[in-house]
Amino acid sequence: MRCVILGGSGFLGRHAGQAMAAAGYEVWSVDCNQIDPATDAPWLAGQVRAEFAAVHDWWRECGGADVVIHLASSTLPATASADPVLDVQVNLVGNLRLLQALREKRARGANPRLLFVSSGGAVYGRPQSVPLAENHPTMPMGAYGVTKLAVEHHLRIEEATHGMAYRVLRLSNPYGEWQRPQGVQGVIAVFAHRALHGLPVDVWGDGSVVRDFVYAADVGQAFVAAARHEGGSRVFNIGGGAGHSVNQIIATLEQLLGRTLERKVFAARPFDPPVNVLDIQRAREELGWQPTIAFEEGVARALEWLRTVPYEPH
Amino acid sequence: MRCVILGGSGFLGRHAGQAMAAAGYEVWSVDCNQIDPATDAPWLAGQVRAEFAAVHDWWRECGGADVVIHLASSTLPATASADPVLDVQVNLVGNLRLLQALREKRARGANPRLLFVSSGGAVYGRPQSVPLAENHPTMPMGAYGVTKLAVEHHLRIEEATHGMAYRVLRLSNPYGEWQRPQGVQGVIAVFAHRALHGLPVDVWGDGSVVRDFVYAADVGQAFVAAARHEGGSRVFNIGGGAGHSVNQIIATLEQLLGRTLERKVFAARPFDPPVNVLDIQRAREELGWQPTIAFEEGVARALEWLRTVPYEPH
Repeated sequence: MRCVILGGSGFLGRHAGQAMAAAGYEVWSVDCNQIDPATDAPWLAGQVRAEFAAVHDWWRECGGADVVIHLASSTLPATASADPVLDVQVNLVGNLRLLQALREKRARGANPRLLFVSSGGAVYGRPQSVPLAENHPTMPMGAYGVTKLAVEHHLRIEEATHGMAYRVLRLSNPYGEWQRPQGVQGVIAVFAHRALHGLPVDVWGDGSVVRDFVYAADVGQAFVAAARHEGGSRVFNIGGGAGHSVNQIIATLEQLLGRTLERKVFAARPFDPPVNVLDIQRAREELGWQPTIAFEEGVARALEWLRTVPYEPH
Repeated sequence: MRCVILGGSGFLGRHAGQAMAAAGYEVWSVDCNQIDPATDAPWLAGQVRAEFAAVHDWWRECGGADVVIHLASSTLPATASADPVLDVQVNLVGNLRLLQALREKRARGANPRLLFVSSGGAVYGRPQSVPLAENHPTMPMGAYGVTKLAVEHHLRIEEATHGMAYRVLRLSNPYGEWQRPQGVQGVIAVFAHRALHGLPVDVWGDGSVVRDFVYAADVGQAFVAAARHEGGSRVFNIGGGAGHSVNQIIATLEQLLGRTLERKVFAARPFDPPVNVLDIQRAREELGWQPTIAFEEGVARALEWLRTVPYEPH
């Protein structure tokens, strides 16, 4: 069985590749950025430099696919809001082209299952109740979530009208090895990296805001489970199973480092919901998946990896 | 008060213009197709030939706007499914450009309210319960509905983040004068036109399928009400208030014409929900709007107008 990972050289792409290879898949990466398999990704059978939507550019080189894990995205919530037209062009139009191309592959006898990565933090919008189950109303508060949700709808329609196999994983906030600490996402990586280099961490309000963090190697296992899932559900929340506050992140880092972190405190942001945690009951029951790495252990592993990353101011 | 209608020369655009003018608005049409105001639209203060999203091309010529009614769309459910990328480019990207341009107008002191026409038949998907209220889950079954829904989300976000005033009208199936009988939409116009010319009408299954039809002049009044609405709701179903079966349409036409219509019967389509009717309670309560023209009267008016339309085979 061959698994092609669109965006396979990125943070989650590496965790997905490692997990799928350990589960017996031949793993290929399709990405505009290449990595050195010898040092960074020994599980890779091969990689192709291509745009994710240009299926004809990578399909033959990979030798086809039984599972396609779609992690390719060039936008983030902030960049999507700043330029929603670009977000639509890259992600929505790109995904429609991907679906069209996969339809042509099915007409020739292939039948890859597409695993699409959506965002549990973006598609639901402001929580009406916590934890957020998959049937919570979807009222995204930003362009990023609108596009993710539109792609989810197109996947559902593509199955109903053209028989495409797919599953959607709505991730909470993944963290772990290979997450770059220079980004605007990934508070754990950013805090840990700054703490390692003796820099203060930015806190909005009193640090009581609770978010859902999921260790990225556990997300990798969720892809394996979704690739094999035979039940009726199509959309799964993939989260840590419990929330952690900003203060808890800092306390965990302080315990691991054996010293106090300096905080730079800003006014609370009124648009931040106080609690945002995913209900992962469906994934537990139908995928037989659940997080296996405790929060403190995951943060410790992320911290160890970050010790190997040189400091770069951003 | 000035009202600019994007798509003002079309079927619904004319009804909207007539109603807004009668309510005291100075009405302008922005459309790629021009109409002869002397014979076809005496209520028009002026018209501009422009793309709806090219706000800078029409804003100054119209003299600005207090209300913008957005009826411009070059796709239909069938064409959107056939080419979803084009639907995204024209409608979703076009609407994002429209929102961006209106943001710039607000920065210069204007504050037009945007009335967006969505589709009660497309955004909800297969009814889980009937009649469909505005809080029914939105699970569109085609690209047309996915795009309409994405635009609705972007409007909500634009209000939350940038203070744009808007209302969404989710229409059922409008019918009445000016609806072209050559299209693929508008079963009443198609049936009436064919009946007038002694041609059989196409019926899938036993004709018991029930749909929601709303007389277009009543839709025109809904725009007037939505332009003035001051309450908290943003999305309103606009429908006929009750469903009518295909058999009822045929019986109404037979009564009006005083003769039996010939039917061409095809196999029932399994994807057609048996009943699809909108709940218009919110519009009744918050807009003070409801349909005023009985179904038989509306069909009679549509039929009289169609007598003026020469037969064109399609």
